[in-house]
Amino acid sequence: MNQMEKNLQKSGHQKIDWVSKHMKLLNLIQEMDYSLSGLKIGMSIHLEAKTAYLAITLKKLGAEVFVTGCNPLSTQDDVAQALKDFGITVHAKRTEDENEYFGFLHRILDYKPDLILDDGADLTVLAHTQRQEVLENLKGVSEETTTGVRRLKNLQVQGILKVPVIAVNNAKMKFMFDNRYGTGQSTWDSIMRNTNLLIAGKNVLVAGYGWCGRGIAMRAHGLGAKVMVSEVDPIKAVEALMDGFEVGKIEELAPRADIIVTATGVRDVLNEEIIRKLKNGVVLANAGHFNVEIPIEKLEKLATRKYEIRQNVNCYEIDGKDIFVIGQGRLVNLAAADGHPVEIMDISFALQAFSLIYLSQKYKQLKNEVYDYPEELDKQVAKLKLRALGIQIDELSDEQRKYLESF
Amino acid sequence: MNQMEKNLQKSGHQKIDWVSKHMKLLNLIQEMDYSLSGLKIGMSIHLEAKTAYLAITLKKLGAEVFVTGCNPLSTQDDVAQALKDFGITVHAKRTEDENEYFGFLHRILDYKPDLILDDGADLTVLAHTQRQEVLENLKGVSEETTTGVRRLKNLQVQGILKVPVIAVNNAKMKFMFDNRYGTGQSTWDSIMRNTNLLIAGKNVLVAGYGWCGRGIAMRAHGLGAKVMVSEVDPIKAVEALMDGFEVGKIEELAPRADIIVTATGVRDVLNEEIIRKLKNGVVLANAGHFNVEIPIEKLEKLATRKYEIRQNVNCYEIDGKDIFVIGQGRLVNLAAADGHPVEIMDISFALQAFSLIYLSQKYKQLKNEVYDYPEELDKQVAKLKLRALGIQIDELSDEQRKYLESF
Amino acid sequence: MNQMEKNLQKSGHQKIDWVSKHMKLLNLIQEMDYSLSGLKIGMSIHLEAKTAYLAITLKKLGAEVFVTGCNPLSTQDDVAQALKDFGITVHAKRTEDENEYFGFLHRILDYKPDLILDDGADLTVLAHTQRQEVLENLKGVSEETTTGVRRLKNLQVQGILKVPVIAVNNAKMKFMFDNRYGTGQSTWDSIMRNTNLLIAGKNVLVAGYGWCGRGIAMRAHGLGAKVMVSEVDPIKAVEALMDGFEVGKIEELAPRADIIVTATGVRDVLNEEIIRKLKNGVVLANAGHFNVEIPIEKLEKLATRKYEIRQNVNCYEIDGKDIFVIGQGRLVNLAAADGHPVEIMDISFALQAFSLIYLSQKYKQLKNEVYDYPEELDKQVAKLKLRALGIQIDELSDEQRKYLESF
Amino acid sequence: MNQMEKNLQKSGHQKIDWVSKHMKLLNLIQEMDYSLSGLKIGMSIHLEAKTAYLAITLKKLGAEVFVTGCNPLSTQDDVAQALKDFGITVHAKRTEDENEYFGFLHRILDYKPDLILDDGADLTVLAHTQRQEVLENLKGVSEETTTGVRRLKNLQVQGILKVPVIAVNNAKMKFMFDNRYGTGQSTWDSIMRNTNLLIAGKNVLVAGYGWCGRGIAMRAHGLGAKVMVSEVDPIKAVEALMDGFEVGKIEELAPRADIIVTATGVRDVLNEEIIRKLKNGVVLANAGHFNVEIPIEKLEKLATRKYEIRQNVNCYEIDGKDIFVIGQGRLVNLAAADGHPVEIMDISFALQAFSLIYLSQKYKQLKNEVYDYPEELDKQVAKLKLRALGIQIDELSDEQRKYLESF
Repeated sequence: MNQMEKNLQKSGHQKIDWVSKHMKLLNLIQEMDYSLSGLKIGMSIHLEAKTAYLAITLKKLGAEVFVTGCNPLSTQDDVAQALKDFGITVHAKRTEDENEYFGFLHRILDYKPDLILDDGADLTVLAHTQRQEVLENLKGVSEETTTGVRRLKNLQVQGILKVPVIAVNNAKMKFMFDNRYGTGQSTWDSIMRNTNLLIAGKNVLVAGYGWCGRGIAMRAHGLGAKVMVSEVDPIKAVEALMDGFEVGKIEELAPRADIIVTATGVRDVLNEEIIRKLKNGVVLANAGHFNVEIPIEKLEKLATRKYEIRQNVNCYEIDGKDIFVIGQGRLVNLAAADGHPVEIMDISFALQAFSLIYLSQKYKQLKNEVYDYPEELDKQVAKLKLRALGIQIDELSDEQRKYLESF
Repeated sequence: MNQMEKNLQKSGHQKIDWVSKHMKLLNLIQEMDYSLSGLKIGMSIHLEAKTAYLAITLKKLGAEVFVTGCNPLSTQDDVAQALKDFGITVHAKRTEDENEYFGFLHRILDYKPDLILDDGADLTVLAHTQRQEVLENLKGVSEETTTGVRRLKNLQVQGILKVPVIAVNNAKMKFMFDNRYGTGQSTWDSIMRNTNLLIAGKNVLVAGYGWCGRGIAMRAHGLGAKVMVSEVDPIKAVEALMDGFEVGKIEELAPRADIIVTATGVRDVLNEEIIRKLKNGVVLANAGHFNVEIPIEKLEKLATRKYEIRQNVNCYEIDGKDIFVIGQGRLVNLAAADGHPVEIMDISFALQAFSLIYLSQKYKQLKNEVYDYPEELDKQVAKLKLRALGIQIDELSDEQRKYLESF
Repeated sequence: MNQMEKNLQKSGHQKIDWVSKHMKLLNLIQEMDYSLSGLKIGMSIHLEAKTAYLAITLKKLGAEVFVTGCNPLSTQDDVAQALKDFGITVHAKRTEDENEYFGFLHRILDYKPDLILDDGADLTVLAHTQRQEVLENLKGVSEETTTGVRRLKNLQVQGILKVPVIAVNNAKMKFMFDNRYGTGQSTWDSIMRNTNLLIAGKNVLVAGYGWCGRGIAMRAHGLGAKVMVSEVDPIKAVEALMDGFEVGKIEELAPRADIIVTATGVRDVLNEEIIRKLKNGVVLANAGHFNVEIPIEKLEKLATRKYEIRQNVNCYEIDGKDIFVIGQGRLVNLAAADGHPVEIMDISFALQAFSLIYLSQKYKQLKNEVYDYPEELDKQVAKLKLRALGIQIDELSDEQRKYLESF
Repeated sequence: MNQMEKNLQKSGHQKIDWVSKHMKLLNLIQEMDYSLSGLKIGMSIHLEAKTAYLAITLKKLGAEVFVTGCNPLSTQDDVAQALKDFGITVHAKRTEDENEYFGFLHRILDYKPDLILDDGADLTVLAHTQRQEVLENLKGVSEETTTGVRRLKNLQVQGILKVPVIAVNNAKMKFMFDNRYGTGQSTWDSIMRNTNLLIAGKNVLVAGYGWCGRGIAMRAHGLGAKVMVSEVDPIKAVEALMDGFEVGKIEELAPRADIIVTATGVRDVLNEEIIRKLKNGVVLANAGHFNVEIPIEKLEKLATRKYEIRQNVNCYEIDGKDIFVIGQGRLVNLAAADGHPVEIMDISFALQAFSLIYLSQKYKQLKNEVYDYPEELDKQVAKLKLRALGIQIDELSDEQRKYLESF
């Protein structure tokens, strides 16, 4: 190992060490009676400290673990390097080369995994298309994302899905927490650290009032901002109103905003007309899916000048006004900060670990379908979280249970 | 009309006048193009100003309206008296006589209504059991409550339901608003007016973190209280935690509480052991279903003395300590205050009006089943609310719609 | 005693009983080692249950107590009746007759009190003007209000003040708590109970951002309202902004408000031009000094019709719009609800009790001046409050104290 | 200029460029009619982008400006390099050499400044002790900090202060905003970015409830934490209670805390006994004066191992538990983040600019004393802030003014 590799290794271990002290659900799972002995697990995930610690957890439960990235740009080389010291096979490196990326996926399939933990379904789709010989040994797939689930449901509809799949994303412990408390906090963490601007007293426009938007609005408000919300769903619009926020058309709200955060799930939240009406000095950040919500190409077209004015912040000069965009319109908490807080990922990965254990036990009874996350496991993760915090809660008495059943 | 009747009439008109100025959705509906002409509607509801104004609205849309109560104790005689001046047939009076109450229900069925608006399903069940001759003309039922829906689903399961039923209670515009913002506010309105105690700085225990509990906790917190939550569902318990509240077993939390509000849906939230550990001077209020959450009979048994210490507040002396119960453990916002805020009932009754219109138009296509509230109507009510407030919201552009469909 | 008197007596006792259970600071003071033995105390106060319990407390400390009202309309006859049973001399009754009112003040002075507890300074001014013979025995005055303090400072400036006066109103434990938490809560208690309207989602304009305005805005926000603030002081205006509220000129904000609460300390917060621009259905309430903030006479002049539409709520029809005024523009929490929460008055009256004890001990050393409330007593009341709540706090260690002094 | 200098220069200009777009009060002042023409101003400040922009502003008003640091470690060399391009004389560099630091101070005095802008009073004290020859030309001093003010008041008491001094720190626009909104936000910005931990649901202990503590508690709460407060002042303790926080002795609260933030102004907030009772994994951060609040040397002594576990985070292993300290116990927002938000410093520096202008105009009328910040200037800065935000506020009418004076 050369010096650079040693440095990477050290840095990677430090990162894993930090998260290991805060991923208490994974720590509890390591100490529980579950076994993944004799199973080979192929993981395709954003390879950083928190996912690494999930891999380590699966290894501690007895599995052989084979890890690669799920996006060529998101692999952290230091973590990849350190992960090898835990007896885990890693084929991953930060790269802009798609061939190399798919090469790594193939390498993982070469090991003929029993279970796949997928993030976006690249690995599973590859197995079902170019590498069908590995399907024989494959017992199940646990998929993290909405997009991945959609792709796998397509396989199911086409009749070519050959394994049961569990959709982790629709677990209550995921969508109710990840989006609201995770995105809510990390969006503002990112905006604050990248701008050093005061949030109190600012006019903040949150575009979209789904779980993410709710979390972002709640925290903006908690930081002293005056919050405005735009929505296309009238029910969510009324909810935003009742939560004390101003609601209106984006073309009326955006020109009054000091900060605009998009979390709509659609593209081009701001059109040219609205862009031209924005305040001088407005800050734009995206917390929704993908990087299409803020129309970067429109900004590029309209700008007479564009330059990086602060790390992660670009300034577009349009009609003599400054428009600041954080993290190039990509997910602001990932592209320009550290992503979700550790404890949020700990919950999500406990869901993943339980999903894999469940598949290893039940795969024979399951059909080759995409399953909703089992409610029982969902509750078990919630109980684990309470246990990790040392919190006990009530149970229904027999009388109460009977009373409930009496209706 | 004697003087007492004249006074009742005047008082009833005043009450209806006040709500008519704040039930803007019903006012908008009155001006819309809908017609209930030629239809007879039988209503069994808590007869007070807000339900009266719903009856008036249906009348204005062209229906013949026949009204009685749905609970012998909840009829307000002044409103009943005034309602007659609007050309509505009323058979109702506050009474403790069950026979009289059922007599009124029969009188309503005598008119052979085309549609029934029910609250608890007494009227509909009567029609299906003792008065089946009226079913011939009956086209549909709109049911307000969970309990009523459960009873009607039972009829469906037994194969004796003869009309389509719409369950208004599961409209999003109902359960997301009524329980959270309605119960949330009115519970504290009631506690404050009945005790004149300061909420800021108090330890408030909210038992149950469903929609009601969330609303009650949110408002307690908004009034400066320190909020504790007890729950039996681990997922809701984690949610309460993330919302910044203390979570634990009720036996540990209750003895530290200054105010306890129950919203669990089960009976006997406090057992004898916990009662004996309560703080001297604790205030108990129930905001959940029925009056079984606070175990009144247990308090009666344990108390060495019981007396009314303030209007609507009873003091139980137990082990030398004072335990105060508001509104005898019945729904604190109804039994000891004015129920939900007017605008909340306005939304709920707009749902009802739309439900009846929908039944009048579609009953031939509908099966004799209990239907969920139609999503389209739900959104329409939300839009109406926004219109009443003069608020416009965004619509998806064609490009955005295509983008959404592309997944 | 006739039946009506018996009923009054019973009702008065019930009211006193309730507050006695929640005025824990007064209860603690009753058990402490202080003595007012041998002293006659003349009290001129709003005679209701809480002030009655202060009188009872002073009596228990050994004083002879003589009570009258400080406003002809605020005396509660039932409490006056019951108070006599505690061995206290009462000359007070609800009346609209000024002569009778002043007659009662004279009766109190006839007893030649050693100490006066005044609210508005009527009693003290009377002693200094028409009844100077009583000054000989008078040792000190404790004055509750700003207005009273101003009047007594005038006496001081004119050189005719003959006793030391303690201004209770400038105690930190008073203005920081009474106005913010007391007015904040009770204003909304009153608005909710008198209108049954939903606060969530409403546009609320708070005129004035002093301690009262801050409390009212904080609680409006805690009930889900969107809060706007008008101010004349630029520093307070910036503070309101940073607290997340919209700030602007009242002529721009008022027309967008659903509810307007005045707490400015000045008259005529709304002029004719603004009144004509108000929303149809706006609710006006005053939480500031006196009843001049909402310009009632302007409303009267402009209205084509005025009538009581709900108890405590008048409707003014102006330009075809409804303008609702609660409690005739008088202090909304007093005129149309129960005033400050019990615990807030408990703190204020603990300040009063300590003030009287202090005067009884120190009057010989004090000059005939109006004194600020002694800081030491202020802290003592805070400590008592913590003790009543069973809360212990830290003390500086010797090292820490030295460190602080080292600067 | 070599390449490194060029890089520094570029980076410095970028930083200044960013803040220049957000320091709108300084921008407004630059455009106003004030003149500092013909005056030499010596500045000793933390030399970074925001202070640099203050220097630039003074230069634009016509002054000759001479800048050095006020702390050997806080100078940012890139900003120092860039500042020279604005025609400002800079003698400063990041260094650990005290001699060099004092050398720079002497260099500034060599220019015989007319006015001094000081931060900690090193420059002014040097002038009064070793460099009295410069006092002849010195017309006044504007001092930023409490510590500096204390030192200069000492000079005054000793009779050796030779110029008028304005204490900027006691301006309302400073202490009410800087500490509450500035420290409040930036403390959590720093904790989040340095730990990536979730704040929602955490037990946060805020030690001290002064302006800083209030801000920190308010924001912790706004991020979803459950907040506990320790205080030595009983009045502040009751205030914290009424604000909805748990209050108690630190020895009882600290062992339940997940995060502890100190803002007390005293040393050794945690003693050995408490340290031993802390939770495994607790995070400690200091937001108070100096780095003595968290007893680092006690931690060092007790720890069996100490290591950097994440950038800016040290882990102390004590009794088998991990105790994490951010930024070595120094001011967490400065030592491990970007200090106060830009707009907060903009307000503070507008106060400074006005202070210097005032001194330049009035120095002949002023005594050689430390003056409180003039109320009129304070309001002027508030007005400027409102103007920068495009907000207009009310003014009292003549009638209202008369009404106020009538009391």
